[in-house]
Amino acid sequence: MNFGSIFLSEALGTGVLLLLGVGVVANVLLAKSKGQDGGWLLINIGWGFAVLAGVYVAYKTGGHLNPAVTIGILFSGADEYASGIAISGSTTLAYLSGQLTGAFLGATAAYLAYKRHFDEETDEEKKLAVFATGPAIRAFRWNFATEVIGTFTLVLVILAFGHTPSGLGPVAAAFLVVGIGASLGGPTGYAINPARDLGPRIAHALLPVSKPVPADEARVPVGVGARSSVESPDVSAEPIGKNSDWGYAWVPVLGPLVGGALAGLAAQFLF
Amino acid sequence: MNFGSIFLSEALGTGVLLLLGVGVVANVLLAKSKGQDGGWLLINIGWGFAVLAGVYVAYKTGGHLNPAVTIGILFSGADEYASGIAISGSTTLAYLSGQLTGAFLGATAAYLAYKRHFDEETDEEKKLAVFATGPAIRAFRWNFATEVIGTFTLVLVILAFGHTPSGLGPVAAAFLVVGIGASLGGPTGYAINPARDLGPRIAHALLPVSKPVPADEARVPVGVGARSSVESPDVSAEPIGKNSDWGYAWVPVLGPLVGGALAGLAAQFLF
Amino acid sequence: MNFGSIFLSEALGTGVLLLLGVGVVANVLLAKSKGQDGGWLLINIGWGFAVLAGVYVAYKTGGHLNPAVTIGILFSGADEYASGIAISGSTTLAYLSGQLTGAFLGATAAYLAYKRHFDEETDEEKKLAVFATGPAIRAFRWNFATEVIGTFTLVLVILAFGHTPSGLGPVAAAFLVVGIGASLGGPTGYAINPARDLGPRIAHALLPVSKPVPADEARVPVGVGARSSVESPDVSAEPIGKNSDWGYAWVPVLGPLVGGALAGLAAQFLF
Amino acid sequence: MNFGSIFLSEALGTGVLLLLGVGVVANVLLAKSKGQDGGWLLINIGWGFAVLAGVYVAYKTGGHLNPAVTIGILFSGADEYASGIAISGSTTLAYLSGQLTGAFLGATAAYLAYKRHFDEETDEEKKLAVFATGPAIRAFRWNFATEVIGTFTLVLVILAFGHTPSGLGPVAAAFLVVGIGASLGGPTGYAINPARDLGPRIAHALLPVSKPVPADEARVPVGVGARSSVESPDVSAEPIGKNSDWGYAWVPVLGPLVGGALAGLAAQFLF
Repeated sequence: MNFGSIFLSEALGTGVLLLLGVGVVANVLLAKSKGQDGGWLLINIGWGFAVLAGVYVAYKTGGHLNPAVTIGILFSGADEYASGIAISGSTTLAYLSGQLTGAFLGATAAYLAYKRHFDEETDEEKKLAVFATGPAIRAFRWNFATEVIGTFTLVLVILAFGHTPSGLGPVAAAFLVVGIGASLGGPTGYAINPARDLGPRIAHALLPVSKPVPADEARVPVGVGARSSVESPDVSAEPIGKNSDWGYAWVPVLGPLVGGALAGLAAQFLF
Repeated sequence: MNFGSIFLSEALGTGVLLLLGVGVVANVLLAKSKGQDGGWLLINIGWGFAVLAGVYVAYKTGGHLNPAVTIGILFSGADEYASGIAISGSTTLAYLSGQLTGAFLGATAAYLAYKRHFDEETDEEKKLAVFATGPAIRAFRWNFATEVIGTFTLVLVILAFGHTPSGLGPVAAAFLVVGIGASLGGPTGYAINPARDLGPRIAHALLPVSKPVPADEARVPVGVGARSSVESPDVSAEPIGKNSDWGYAWVPVLGPLVGGALAGLAAQFLF
Repeated sequence: MNFGSIFLSEALGTGVLLLLGVGVVANVLLAKSKGQDGGWLLINIGWGFAVLAGVYVAYKTGGHLNPAVTIGILFSGADEYASGIAISGSTTLAYLSGQLTGAFLGATAAYLAYKRHFDEETDEEKKLAVFATGPAIRAFRWNFATEVIGTFTLVLVILAFGHTPSGLGPVAAAFLVVGIGASLGGPTGYAINPARDLGPRIAHALLPVSKPVPADEARVPVGVGARSSVESPDVSAEPIGKNSDWGYAWVPVLGPLVGGALAGLAAQFLF
Repeated sequence: MNFGSIFLSEALGTGVLLLLGVGVVANVLLAKSKGQDGGWLLINIGWGFAVLAGVYVAYKTGGHLNPAVTIGILFSGADEYASGIAISGSTTLAYLSGQLTGAFLGATAAYLAYKRHFDEETDEEKKLAVFATGPAIRAFRWNFATEVIGTFTLVLVILAFGHTPSGLGPVAAAFLVVGIGASLGGPTGYAINPARDLGPRIAHALLPVSKPVPADEARVPVGVGARSSVESPDVSAEPIGKNSDWGYAWVPVLGPLVGGALAGLAAQFLF
């Protein structure tokens, strides 16, 4: 399978993943949406079944949709990324670039689907939270650890799938992601996928998501008094919602990559 | 398979889909129902498992239950709508007319199941919302875009099912619809199916759902102060709940048809 | 397969169904329980996965667990109730008596699991609602219609299972029951199974569930002001919670039987 | 399969089970977590899909992950614990010790994932409740009965799996655990697994979970006035949260063992 086909398949699958994943967060967070304040489980199920949809449409490439999965397979000592796709520098690059591109485009499509709700929403923190993950408690080393642990679990179980006769592939992956979100999403909002966080963060930076807000107003700790605990990052003097919070962006990229690589090595030893 | 058999199978499946789908909205919205204020996820799961039930009973025709799926298959360049059913003008008409008829009858059956709750409910907006979809923010072009995006995703993934060995058909379709509802249902209440919206809207117009309300009273913005965000359409001077909101009706019909057709074309290129 | 084996298998399966089904209502309704006020979806999922568990343990008899299913198969014109079990007066009686006995015993086991919570609960309506279903709005003919519609749907879909290659049997049945509860459970609490209602109602009458309450107190409309809408039957002068509400008991027995029989006839024609 | 391989497989699977299971309770209970107050169903789904993940990674040993399952198979009269693993004193010990070790390590990993949230949480009861189960109403004999009933049901259904052609193994087990939690978890928080309770309880005792609290303060009945009913143990003069509540620890160990053994005996007779 050539570079372009791999790129296209993974971009399509990751695009669907992010369209639905960013969509569910928009549904729960944004003003006037019908699923507003729908709760954590709704978010978990939205992301989980987004995986189901994305894996199905990316069936040609095994539906990685996640650089941590690709890196995990690489480190597991496997010969192929999917049936008929040998592991090489070129195929690796096709997977990773397709995933990042798809994530950007999927988040953009979700933005369009919720365009008028972004217009009506005045809380910049919430708008950013629709796109990118953020920590409940800003403590970068612990946040990093949480992302490593979550992604390690994700990739280890996915690598175990190959050793069991199931045919349940997409459904089992969906439930796994529902479960990891339910269980390990509390501290950082579970990126567990570098493309899932970086692609939408770039989209947030490039799209006209934020409206100009007077400096004073922007410093008011938004979200105070809100009953939803879905997103409550520490608010420093700098308005995080406006600048796409690039200071945190390395955590949900490096954490999942390290977690995926460790899972690959563990699988080589364990399975 | 002849016209009548296709018509009957799709009417039966779409009838079950609408009975359960309209039912869950009635359960969440109507006065004194045991599931009142049950939340967005309950609605998503109700519609999703309604698909499961409908697909099973329409097994003879592949369980389309949705003109957007039928149109999507048509545009995908396939030879058959289901095993043994060649694509033609006659079979297409049998699918579409069966779906619309079934949707009308299923919504009517749901009305009967919740008859006394309709009697007790005084909010005309809620009664209409049980039958037909409506936008959270009335902005028809954006509402149209949301329906196109949601239905494109639905049909694209369904068309991908055929390329993977699953046997999970009805369950995967159910989860897909749960997911699309969770993720993309916020702005418009996800018709993603012209029959799902038009059939029940006709039922709402024909059945004795509304009680006469004095003109003044009907103009009071109903739902103000309500805690549920499930249905909060803009209320103009004209009482939307009374006239079946025909002004909006083209959006959930044309949007899904366009989305399904685009997904069919995309599948022809991608899969 | 002889009478005793059929009886034992169905009693076991229906016992597990009622243990888990009555259990989830106890969890949501009774004082101090960890799942108190857990919502309608929790109840739907509890009953749905109770079906999963019950069907698995009654695998020898096809896991009917429900007289309406047995009657539905009878009316569908099938030759067997399950592989190797011919339809006859004797096997029919073995199914029905096993189901009713198992329902009684399963409800009793659930009572024991929640014994101390029954002791702490002072609301007699809630205690009855743990065992037996009751209408949200007392209107027996409409309540009957709701039970017929719900059970017709349940049995029709189950009869369709046999025509599709799935292997998903217990899981599909579980989701179906989750869905019917979500969608059609609002008016009557979805017995959709005569044994599910009658067995526990007998248990409620025989077990020391109620404590003596002075006559005055018992007439106070319990539940008024309660925030949960899970169970809100009309309270007449007669304290329903104390006398097991036998006046309503025919609805959740006859309604499901009629619905199941109609589904069997429909399946004979349709499938 | 030798002792070490069995030990490693079960430790890995039970580790993943406890990482995700303890994680979801942390998510719902601890201060500032994004899933705080997420409800009982979120906890049920978290534990259920934790089983899915754990069973997949322990595929070599059949994914028991639970001494009650191992004991249940032993008492069922089977020849093997899993394909190629004969039942013997040595293999039994390998299973049990692997499960307990994995449970301890998994709980520790969950502690690390939520480290900063433990730091911010001031309620010692909640911290203990993240690790170990506790009764809603302290009545040890009835609590014991509840654990016996729940585990009997769990193991009986699992033993029935082997008699049905499903291939759904991990998914069916996951749903079963969701269902038992939803239905029978109300009184005791459903250990239904000695390793699930004892391993994390040891971790709670050894890890620096608690901060020194002045004696007066510790006696204040924590949790009073809290709206969440997830964890509301009786608070005696002795601060339960500080001493790992060892007085209760025998219940969630012996109850599940007795329930599992009884299920094994029942399966020998029934299946």
